[in-house]
Amino acid sequence: MSIKPVLSIDAFGGDNAPEIVIQGIEHFLTHGDLSEQVEFILHGDENQLAPLFELAPKTSACSTVKHTETFIDMDTKPSQALRRGKGTSMWNTIESVKMGEAVLAVSAGNTGALMAMSKLQLRMKTGVQRPAIAASWPRVDGMCVVLDVGANIECDAAQLTEFAVLGEAYFRAIYKKEAPTVGLLNVGTEDLKGNAVIKAAHQRLSESELDLNYVGYVEGNDIAMGTVDVIVTDGFTGNIALKTAEGTAKLVGKFLSDALQGTPWSKFTSFLNMHALKKMKKRIDPRNSNGGVFLGLNGIVVKSHGGTDAIGFANALEIAVGLAESNFLEQIEETLTRLHDEDDNIGFIA
Amino acid sequence: MSIKPVLSIDAFGGDNAPEIVIQGIEHFLTHGDLSEQVEFILHGDENQLAPLFELAPKTSACSTVKHTETFIDMDTKPSQALRRGKGTSMWNTIESVKMGEAVLAVSAGNTGALMAMSKLQLRMKTGVQRPAIAASWPRVDGMCVVLDVGANIECDAAQLTEFAVLGEAYFRAIYKKEAPTVGLLNVGTEDLKGNAVIKAAHQRLSESELDLNYVGYVEGNDIAMGTVDVIVTDGFTGNIALKTAEGTAKLVGKFLSDALQGTPWSKFTSFLNMHALKKMKKRIDPRNSNGGVFLGLNGIVVKSHGGTDAIGFANALEIAVGLAESNFLEQIEETLTRLHDEDDNIGFIA
Repeated sequence: MSIKPVLSIDAFGGDNAPEIVIQGIEHFLTHGDLSEQVEFILHGDENQLAPLFELAPKTSACSTVKHTETFIDMDTKPSQALRRGKGTSMWNTIESVKMGEAVLAVSAGNTGALMAMSKLQLRMKTGVQRPAIAASWPRVDGMCVVLDVGANIECDAAQLTEFAVLGEAYFRAIYKKEAPTVGLLNVGTEDLKGNAVIKAAHQRLSESELDLNYVGYVEGNDIAMGTVDVIVTDGFTGNIALKTAEGTAKLVGKFLSDALQGTPWSKFTSFLNMHALKKMKKRIDPRNSNGGVFLGLNGIVVKSHGGTDAIGFANALEIAVGLAESNFLEQIEETLTRLHDEDDNIGFIA
Repeated sequence: MSIKPVLSIDAFGGDNAPEIVIQGIEHFLTHGDLSEQVEFILHGDENQLAPLFELAPKTSACSTVKHTETFIDMDTKPSQALRRGKGTSMWNTIESVKMGEAVLAVSAGNTGALMAMSKLQLRMKTGVQRPAIAASWPRVDGMCVVLDVGANIECDAAQLTEFAVLGEAYFRAIYKKEAPTVGLLNVGTEDLKGNAVIKAAHQRLSESELDLNYVGYVEGNDIAMGTVDVIVTDGFTGNIALKTAEGTAKLVGKFLSDALQGTPWSKFTSFLNMHALKKMKKRIDPRNSNGGVFLGLNGIVVKSHGGTDAIGFANALEIAVGLAESNFLEQIEETLTRLHDEDDNIGFIA
């Protein structure tokens, strides 16, 4: 009998916690593809959780509560969170991973605080400067991965190179594809485009013998078009690209709904076509790509959107369980060691 | 009788020139809102243009051809274009503005070459470091303006402040709105977010007494949601955001068409609803927002997408004529002078 992986959950992280967290777990256990194979440690106030468990019998059956009465607010600064955060539900969620009680942590709480606490408790993998946040992104044929989407506002070439290695291993773990392609996000695909940092990272990746399937520069439109599997960029550009795409998808959705509600005839024919329209709506539903992952730590931390609902939280759990069942951390360890050995051999300084 | 504004057109710029240029002018003269009020100087090979004029009688009637047999390729580097570009259709297009024969220049040719030649011939407005490219962007209620979308890969705080002034005047000229709102693109709206350059620009704009309607930081999703009229960013981020939005709109369009073509029933009901769907498609058609404008020069240069078709080129002309009829250059002159006076008074160094 194999042992079920244990997930450590911040039951009090996020705008609508703890309700959507418990409902999200219940949704995952009822509808999730990987739901048979997992147990939970929930960190939070057991008195507030008790009535929620009555409406979530499956969750109740496979969860243990670790009680705490303190929480991190959505607007707490990372430095404050580090000073005063010990013993909060977020802190304890990460601590469970550090102590080996759980294989990974999931929180919909304050991103900056979660990042700071994760770094402090789990520590970076040897040689990695800072974690990156990887996001799954819908594209023509399935999903791609973009990183960093917000952790590192300014990056040097060594970090971008690390992101390529981290993102490639992550894509393999989640989407089970050998040798996924990797591209570097730029304003053009010609060699002379971009700033000094991007050019240095491009050269480093082009010359590497790490067996990365690096294809060179890609542009913003390549993300959704599926030109490559993994898109590497700094956290400033990645965050703006991600939110711009969310805004655009919302805009197009609004234009569509305006058009379909415009006249009685278009309302009627849309009603006839509701099934197809719902199918399309589902494909652009941002909840389906909820779940950013912090990469580069000695442990896995999955960050759900703060404002997500139960379905979005369930999708973050789906990603978490996929990772829990992979040998992602070992793969990362191995490839990062090879990257840094290569850096030393060629005397690479970012 | 008022004198019609004259537009100088690079008839041989773009992937599909000169055909789409002539067809685009004809389309503009046939369907454009402002088509009564304009004349054209076309720069290019008169022998190749002659047969095209036979199919474009309106264009023929209000155009003068200035003959040249040399052209700038789409892959010519800006430095090469400057060395060998004199006398090409692109060079002469800008020269007509410099000489006062035309009020503005339009080209669908190589962006880097057009930028380099425009700077050399028209020169920057006093105190402006480099031109910005402003793009019109569809949003919930009409259009907003984003700049820079590609001319300045790295920007300092003084440039971002200039972009705010240039973009605001541009929005007023094109969309006839008094006191348009201006936002600075960032990864969050809290004061502590962003890098040093963004924070310095934010402080400068917040403290300015220029009567700019500056509202502070905005995020990627605010662009399409219409939170502000003018979005200021560096050319690297702006270019990636623009192309990411184009890719996303294309992706959502594809998902919709997949859904509507999925079953015979959905095909049938989509057919019944074709009018509404076409209306929606038109709203996200990138041709409707074709026409980036170089801001900060002593003259106006409108850059159409290189791969556009006749309808897209006609839309770039619509923007050009709107600008030609405004007092945009004078307004810019005045506000820039006030900005630079203020810089001197407060001792602002980027």
